[in-house]
Amino acid sequence: MNAREFLGEVQRAIEAELDRLVPADAPHAARTLHRAMRYSLFAGGKRIRPVLCIEAVRAVDPDLAGAVTPACALELIHTYSLIHDDLPALDNDDFRRGKPTCHKVFGEAMAILAGDALLTLAFRVLSAHTQAPAERVARMVAELSEAAGTPSGMIAGQVADLEGEGKTPDAALLETIHRAKTGALLRASVRFGALYAGAGMEEYAALSRFGEHAGLAFQIVDDILDVEQTSEALGKTAGKDAEQKKITFPAVYGLERSHEMAAEQRRLAGESLHGFGERAARLLALADLIVERTA
Amino acid sequence: MNAREFLGEVQRAIEAELDRLVPADAPHAARTLHRAMRYSLFAGGKRIRPVLCIEAVRAVDPDLAGAVTPACALELIHTYSLIHDDLPALDNDDFRRGKPTCHKVFGEAMAILAGDALLTLAFRVLSAHTQAPAERVARMVAELSEAAGTPSGMIAGQVADLEGEGKTPDAALLETIHRAKTGALLRASVRFGALYAGAGMEEYAALSRFGEHAGLAFQIVDDILDVEQTSEALGKTAGKDAEQKKITFPAVYGLERSHEMAAEQRRLAGESLHGFGERAARLLALADLIVERTA
Repeated sequence: MNAREFLGEVQRAIEAELDRLVPADAPHAARTLHRAMRYSLFAGGKRIRPVLCIEAVRAVDPDLAGAVTPACALELIHTYSLIHDDLPALDNDDFRRGKPTCHKVFGEAMAILAGDALLTLAFRVLSAHTQAPAERVARMVAELSEAAGTPSGMIAGQVADLEGEGKTPDAALLETIHRAKTGALLRASVRFGALYAGAGMEEYAALSRFGEHAGLAFQIVDDILDVEQTSEALGKTAGKDAEQKKITFPAVYGLERSHEMAAEQRRLAGESLHGFGERAARLLALADLIVERTA
Repeated sequence: MNAREFLGEVQRAIEAELDRLVPADAPHAARTLHRAMRYSLFAGGKRIRPVLCIEAVRAVDPDLAGAVTPACALELIHTYSLIHDDLPALDNDDFRRGKPTCHKVFGEAMAILAGDALLTLAFRVLSAHTQAPAERVARMVAELSEAAGTPSGMIAGQVADLEGEGKTPDAALLETIHRAKTGALLRASVRFGALYAGAGMEEYAALSRFGEHAGLAFQIVDDILDVEQTSEALGKTAGKDAEQKKITFPAVYGLERSHEMAAEQRRLAGESLHGFGERAARLLALADLIVERTA
């Protein structure tokens, strides 16, 4: 199976649900805020996290509906993190996916609040919009708040990344940063599917391993693309990692070994799902896409 | 009953739990971040929100233990909102409770991330640390994410407040701002107690009304103090509302009428809890304290 065969359809379902969850016609007081939230939410993201969630649900229980709602919580968190990371005080990025960043369009105050609102809304979506037994909702809230927070989630990774700038590239620090900054949320995306679908312990563990390997492959490829691609192809400033002396896979291992490592993680991701047989076909196609993408 | 008789003890229990939930000895990567979070968390707040939660639990079920944990989630949200509100792009405040604000000490990047981490941790505390049936946890997550978010919660109120600066003082806009910016989280604090204790519909509704009236009294008094008190007494810059042309109760109704309105809200708060009899004694003492405070 090729991910392009089903990806467009899944992405469209996600876009429609995001449009419902963050409506354009907000009450007057929140109108500008919602415009800022929607500006970043509909800026052309690949929706990799919600897609992973939806396809993990399909791998566990192909007949279960409604996964698109909790899946959107992951995209809300991801989008908030991009808005805050781009702020002048943090990475100070003017462009993201080829468009001016949120604070360039709406100002810093609104960008900070739009990020806060997206983060908060993610938990609202899980607790008030997701059709699932309360036990599963509570476990998803626990998973998301751990993956997005501290001391081992996304925010901790962002701090380690900031503090790591200019330090000697080091394999242990690289792993710490990656695991927290992008790995935790990507793994949570797959786990969300397992939790929503009520997977047993063995399936949950297998999907978690898949999420770790696919997440690591994603990050390695991201770092490689920052070196090999043009800003135009990426829709953001290329070569910024090297300029800011970020600790990346190419910086620590070189480009050739980084390519090998990405392929190896793809292989391990596939092995994790042996027990799923044909039910894993779409997740494996996504893992291929992660490694083969060019932007 | 006088709130000072029990307040110190409740506050100490909250401080101890916050210390446990945001430990000083975080893993290396998150150490600076946790220092920034703790700096603002232990800056001398009155803990009014968690105290309201704990006392609402006592009003419903005096024998139920463990309320201090979900109560702390409210303080984490409150603290995050102060850190972000104080940022240069928002209210640009250098002092809070007599101490330099978080971004003055740790820099803007760390202050933004510390706020994000506190917000995220609030949901972690509810889902992973609170000992309650999953149905109650899910309802608390729903309540908190609504009260803290958009379109009718704290963030929407902050936006309306920012956009209202300089507009003609107007009773309708004042009510919109207050309800969202501080009212929603204060009401949620009381509701948290009702939800945690498994209150019936009638008790839940009565406690909600109490939360609304006590919350409104709190905001009116806050606005009055900004006019009547010195910066030294408040521990923050006094008179800032007028300088920034904020829409406040004294600006709309004048000081004398504002005092009357605060007293009226205190009376209505008391009426809401008639059905609780003696079990409401501590909540009523807190309502007195809210109206009579001088800082």
